[in-house]
Amino acid sequence: MNCTSHDLQNLWSRYHSIMLTAHVSPDGDAIGSLLALYHWLKEQGKQVVMVVDDDIDDKFKFLDGAEAIQKPNAVHTDGQWLYVVLDATSADRCGKAADLIQGKVLNIDHHISNEHFADWEFVRPDVAATGEALTALFLEWGVGMTAAMAQALYMAIATDCGFFKFSNTTGHTLRMAANLVDAGAAPNTISEHLEAQSLIKLRALSEVLKHIELFAGNTVAGISFTPEVLKHTGEHTGGYIDYARNVKGVDVAFTVKYISDNETRVSLRSKTVDVNAIAAVFGGGGHVRAAGCTIAEPLSKAKKMLVKEIIRNK
Amino acid sequence: MNCTSHDLQNLWSRYHSIMLTAHVSPDGDAIGSLLALYHWLKEQGKQVVMVVDDDIDDKFKFLDGAEAIQKPNAVHTDGQWLYVVLDATSADRCGKAADLIQGKVLNIDHHISNEHFADWEFVRPDVAATGEALTALFLEWGVGMTAAMAQALYMAIATDCGFFKFSNTTGHTLRMAANLVDAGAAPNTISEHLEAQSLIKLRALSEVLKHIELFAGNTVAGISFTPEVLKHTGEHTGGYIDYARNVKGVDVAFTVKYISDNETRVSLRSKTVDVNAIAAVFGGGGHVRAAGCTIAEPLSKAKKMLVKEIIRNK
Repeated sequence: MNCTSHDLQNLWSRYHSIMLTAHVSPDGDAIGSLLALYHWLKEQGKQVVMVVDDDIDDKFKFLDGAEAIQKPNAVHTDGQWLYVVLDATSADRCGKAADLIQGKVLNIDHHISNEHFADWEFVRPDVAATGEALTALFLEWGVGMTAAMAQALYMAIATDCGFFKFSNTTGHTLRMAANLVDAGAAPNTISEHLEAQSLIKLRALSEVLKHIELFAGNTVAGISFTPEVLKHTGEHTGGYIDYARNVKGVDVAFTVKYISDNETRVSLRSKTVDVNAIAAVFGGGGHVRAAGCTIAEPLSKAKKMLVKEIIRNK
Repeated sequence: MNCTSHDLQNLWSRYHSIMLTAHVSPDGDAIGSLLALYHWLKEQGKQVVMVVDDDIDDKFKFLDGAEAIQKPNAVHTDGQWLYVVLDATSADRCGKAADLIQGKVLNIDHHISNEHFADWEFVRPDVAATGEALTALFLEWGVGMTAAMAQALYMAIATDCGFFKFSNTTGHTLRMAANLVDAGAAPNTISEHLEAQSLIKLRALSEVLKHIELFAGNTVAGISFTPEVLKHTGEHTGGYIDYARNVKGVDVAFTVKYISDNETRVSLRSKTVDVNAIAAVFGGGGHVRAAGCTIAEPLSKAKKMLVKEIIRNK
């Protein structure tokens, strides 16, 4: 069932115990949305647990409450609980956290590829971030927005719209962010934590930048994270794709990452091309300008298949 | 004389011919403010010329009207003109454009170090950008904000607050930006032009990242643009300093750049330290978190003097 803001407000009052979860490989929007809703529900006197089936990136740990996020095996719930799936298109995207679900599910999300799987849903593909939808809800409900909530939500919004640079940035996005700064969000603290890089990371970047390749008349740029390059970068390769995307004249950027000899993880970004459609060809998805998929082929073959598909879609 | 928004509105009506100028080494705020005011005054039927005593960075040339910005020697004005100095603390900061001034001067600026030199001034150190002050004025005057004006002003604001990451980002900053997106500013187009990098630039970045040095228990990071490094980067070295600033644990970042054997250009950024005060020791200035100066010493000596002064101020 599609919920209005008012329906949601009523829903909370029917439950005392609430489990919050979000997608695996949690990004800023997943973590920020999780923490903001956690703080608010605690304030309402609820029993709340946050569960994510993944490690939390160190850069998010400056946020209040991040230390309370648990792994699925540490959590016990029952059929009386409400299960809230944040920033995910399906329960499956939450990995083993989905196995904990024994009751009704509420899904709050903003992905166009949402699978409309939940008992209740609040899905807003017109906003840049789940955190933007949550900010609007909190403001509408007129509840006190604490500085901790504001900080988490500003991070959620800012990370999903590339700090107000991507095409999903609307007047509404910026207005929600304005309200959050008024309520105590500190953009400089947030960006400092998100962007803090060790010298080792910068040396890794120096290495990655040598490996950018151009295709299709320099309109497509790609980075291959071979086992060799991964030695420099480590497993966390998010963010490098933006360097490929920013090459002058490039419309579509991709990274292909070695997972195993027959598995390659693909990330896609674009300026005009619908990369959600390209990712869908390989069973993946995401947004029009940012998507991903996994190809069950060796890296070099996966790269060829991907470039071919990108060119076909341009 | 300090002007109110209303005073300014009256001022325009007293002049038919208006020269707009901004500081040398014009940044996004200088160029964006110049263009927005240019478009608006043209719309009011004024004769307007824009003068900057410097080359305009290619990345700003996507903006409507950028091609109309002239060098001082191409411009003729007289005592009947109004001279508007934008985003500059003094007329001197405009280089040879200042020599064209033969009449009354209006200064619109947001620098705390403003020298209050003009006949009329609208100086707002509480806003993040001159473009933010201008946006508020245009909205207050209720004049039609065209997409070209909105685009220029969004760029002005976004570049001066690091795309809503710096501590000068307030609710007001974001609210002005929201109005600009509503009026047709396209954040993605702006950021794509600002961030478009040639592969050559990325290879240069790869080189620069190898040269970051840490001082004072890894709380100060610096990059030296020696003639050797400048071979890779070219003369435009702005932007690299952010990589030094983002090193984990770093509070103050600086770059020292070879100008001649006895002249070194210094840029400073910080997270908490007042770098305006440090730059002032060497006769420079700027903002609390971003400042610059020139030291009449060879690069290596200038660097030592600078690091000593930074440590003294921490």
